[in-house]
Amino acid sequence: MTLAPVLARLDQDQEAALARLMALLRIPSISTDPAYQADCDAAADWLVADLASIGFEAGKRKTPGHPMVVAHGGTGAPHLLFYGHYDVQPVDPLALWNTPPFEPAVEDTPKGKVIRGRGAGDDKGQLMTFVEAMRAWVAEHGELPCRITIFLEGEEESGSPSLVPFMKENADELRADFAMICDTGMFEGRVPAITTMLRGLLREEVILRAADRDLHSGMYGGLAVNPIHLLTRILADLHDDTGRVTLEGFYDGVPELPDEIRAQWQGLGFDHARFLGDVGLSVPYGPPELTPLEKIWSQPTAEVNGITGGYTGAGFKTVLPAEARAKVSFRLVGTQDPETVYAAFVKHVESRLPADVTVEFPMGHGAPASRMPTDDPAFETARRALSEEWGIDAAFIGSGGSIPIAGYFQDILGMDSMLIGFGRDDDAIHSPNEKYDLESFTKGARSWARILAALSDKG
Amino acid sequence: MTLAPVLARLDQDQEAALARLMALLRIPSISTDPAYQADCDAAADWLVADLASIGFEAGKRKTPGHPMVVAHGGTGAPHLLFYGHYDVQPVDPLALWNTPPFEPAVEDTPKGKVIRGRGAGDDKGQLMTFVEAMRAWVAEHGELPCRITIFLEGEEESGSPSLVPFMKENADELRADFAMICDTGMFEGRVPAITTMLRGLLREEVILRAADRDLHSGMYGGLAVNPIHLLTRILADLHDDTGRVTLEGFYDGVPELPDEIRAQWQGLGFDHARFLGDVGLSVPYGPPELTPLEKIWSQPTAEVNGITGGYTGAGFKTVLPAEARAKVSFRLVGTQDPETVYAAFVKHVESRLPADVTVEFPMGHGAPASRMPTDDPAFETARRALSEEWGIDAAFIGSGGSIPIAGYFQDILGMDSMLIGFGRDDDAIHSPNEKYDLESFTKGARSWARILAALSDKG
Repeated sequence: MTLAPVLARLDQDQEAALARLMALLRIPSISTDPAYQADCDAAADWLVADLASIGFEAGKRKTPGHPMVVAHGGTGAPHLLFYGHYDVQPVDPLALWNTPPFEPAVEDTPKGKVIRGRGAGDDKGQLMTFVEAMRAWVAEHGELPCRITIFLEGEEESGSPSLVPFMKENADELRADFAMICDTGMFEGRVPAITTMLRGLLREEVILRAADRDLHSGMYGGLAVNPIHLLTRILADLHDDTGRVTLEGFYDGVPELPDEIRAQWQGLGFDHARFLGDVGLSVPYGPPELTPLEKIWSQPTAEVNGITGGYTGAGFKTVLPAEARAKVSFRLVGTQDPETVYAAFVKHVESRLPADVTVEFPMGHGAPASRMPTDDPAFETARRALSEEWGIDAAFIGSGGSIPIAGYFQDILGMDSMLIGFGRDDDAIHSPNEKYDLESFTKGARSWARILAALSDKG
Repeated sequence: MTLAPVLARLDQDQEAALARLMALLRIPSISTDPAYQADCDAAADWLVADLASIGFEAGKRKTPGHPMVVAHGGTGAPHLLFYGHYDVQPVDPLALWNTPPFEPAVEDTPKGKVIRGRGAGDDKGQLMTFVEAMRAWVAEHGELPCRITIFLEGEEESGSPSLVPFMKENADELRADFAMICDTGMFEGRVPAITTMLRGLLREEVILRAADRDLHSGMYGGLAVNPIHLLTRILADLHDDTGRVTLEGFYDGVPELPDEIRAQWQGLGFDHARFLGDVGLSVPYGPPELTPLEKIWSQPTAEVNGITGGYTGAGFKTVLPAEARAKVSFRLVGTQDPETVYAAFVKHVESRLPADVTVEFPMGHGAPASRMPTDDPAFETARRALSEEWGIDAAFIGSGGSIPIAGYFQDILGMDSMLIGFGRDDDAIHSPNEKYDLESFTKGARSWARILAALSDKG
């Protein structure tokens, strides 16, 4: 089975492929907000139908949360499992969107055409690149080039509560030679990349409660404890003046970066001024002895992702609030243990609580960092296929973001992952005006056709 | 003109008076939220019509914000100006109300009957006490006992932006011998009181902005500045470990409490355990060398009244936010200068801003503390009238809350104020389930009838 006609068909079929992606993007499958439960379900149905139309034996699989989509097709070696997620982030602040987030459109921009809409870059546009590659392969050759399982999740943006139980219950069905995870980006938007180091993620909300009602700050101010003050102190104390995290034992398991990796990363010529400049910043934050790539790829963080307390509406209300809350997350690297970090965080908070203040920790789950075995020759094969499509040497890189699924594939299924995606740094994923470059979509599909050909016995 | 029939009529007219208050409470006149502009207007109209029905020459007076209500009636000495405000606080968090905030009702509680609803205690129930006293007086004697001006504001809960310009423009019309301000409470809900020391208030919002969009905390975390972190540091630094405010020069103008006043306050037998216990707290906060009454009456504070930033909805969003905001207020005492404190606060914030972070201060206005001349014999006359109604010695007390109008009456109209009100500590003003004791309403009206009789030449 030859590659050339598959690539030609992808080029020729571009308009129809785009129309399919648009249909999927119009479904507001926000997994973290219960108001969108039916939409998540609809997105899963749409994918099942589309995969069935290519010849997959596809099904929607129930979980206590949003459903999984699992599909099987093809024969021969290797057996590849493709992973993506059909759920998307919330859209607030809605006022900052220039177009409605679930009315996707192709826009001309100074940097080229983009597909604009929530989920375009994370992850619907990405997952449709491999679906389109498989569709073209089947259309040309009547069958897939190897045995393929597709595994699409609907809770990636809301902590994946059903993922581990589902993988454990269906381990034999899901286990393959490799997982192909399409949820990452290209280096600096120009170098095709296989991500081989991923930070882990631990998330928790902290809810402090003091008085049993909001108080008048004139009547009680100075005599009654203010939980916002306490929360600001607790959160401020998470970092020292140099930006290092102060939790006890936090840096246990954070590896020294090997000199050769540091050298390789320096060779990438990362333009941090442009990376920051793209979002209106100019100065790298954090300890000055670390390079910018180390800060986002190989160093752990503690970040406050959200905070609220007291009166936050228009005008002013001189209230001394009953409660204050913050959402806090930790990016983990190396062998940092999420449970150890979690215990240190809980201790950090609890040791700072005065009388009359109680704390609730409602979430508390985390995933460790993961690192892929780049000495397996399949990684080099995939890297060469990517290089051919893009006309530039593809790279093995790190990622600051957390894709816990890669760790689960390792732990539960004993399976390594290739993290290959075509996102750009300016895709504004998780932000208003999310987009996916049209080039990422079209050359992404062509890249997967090439990787399938290169890895498969029949290719 | 004798007092006894006026008191009898107030007792007999109680049901009708309550029905009038309920009608006023049903108008959701939330001044800080532009969505309720028409309701504020309707509350002013209702009061104009009610005052006219008693015989006042009453009018709704335009301002750039919500209207003032001004009414004139009676002849003879003294000339008293009665002040109240018809606007109310916002109702959020609405979920914590047991009954709809604008569907007032009388409830039986273990402590007696209460009038439940937003504005019942602050300030509609209070202002109707003097209106009912005047109504009864006119009904019995055909005229008021002295010359009376009524001045009702609709922006007290939103910083009173129109107040000073309006008072300056209408100074001759508003100037009287004394202002009677009905917006305060009884000491410990049992001792009728004239408040003679009031803390001032300075309010500002701090808006920090960093990146030009919300960022993915995995992609940027550790490299891009997080404005929530910065805000928590800035706010935590407002107090030292003992709870003292750290702003440069903040305590300039804070007077030592005279020993005789301290002794008088100690004589009040303030039950701080009950005061805190009523709202679910047990331990006095702040420097241990200060007594609880000093903390709320004669010491300044810095309080964060609200904070928000990043993702605060259901679930989790690992965002590194573009902005973070806090509403901060300062209670001022003695001769603390609002402008000096404001400048120190701005410097506190600006000196902590790293590169790439900007700050906006959108509000910035304040009023100093005020103290009344209790050696004027009218104060003792009013105190005796209160003592007679309640059967317990009335007291001159301080207040932690700010009623800037008292300062404005002094500064702009050269007029001292008697701050007399019948609120209770558990009225939950500014909170869900606000109430006003039915006894406060009925004995409040009787108190004003007595005070009018005692102060007036004709009484």
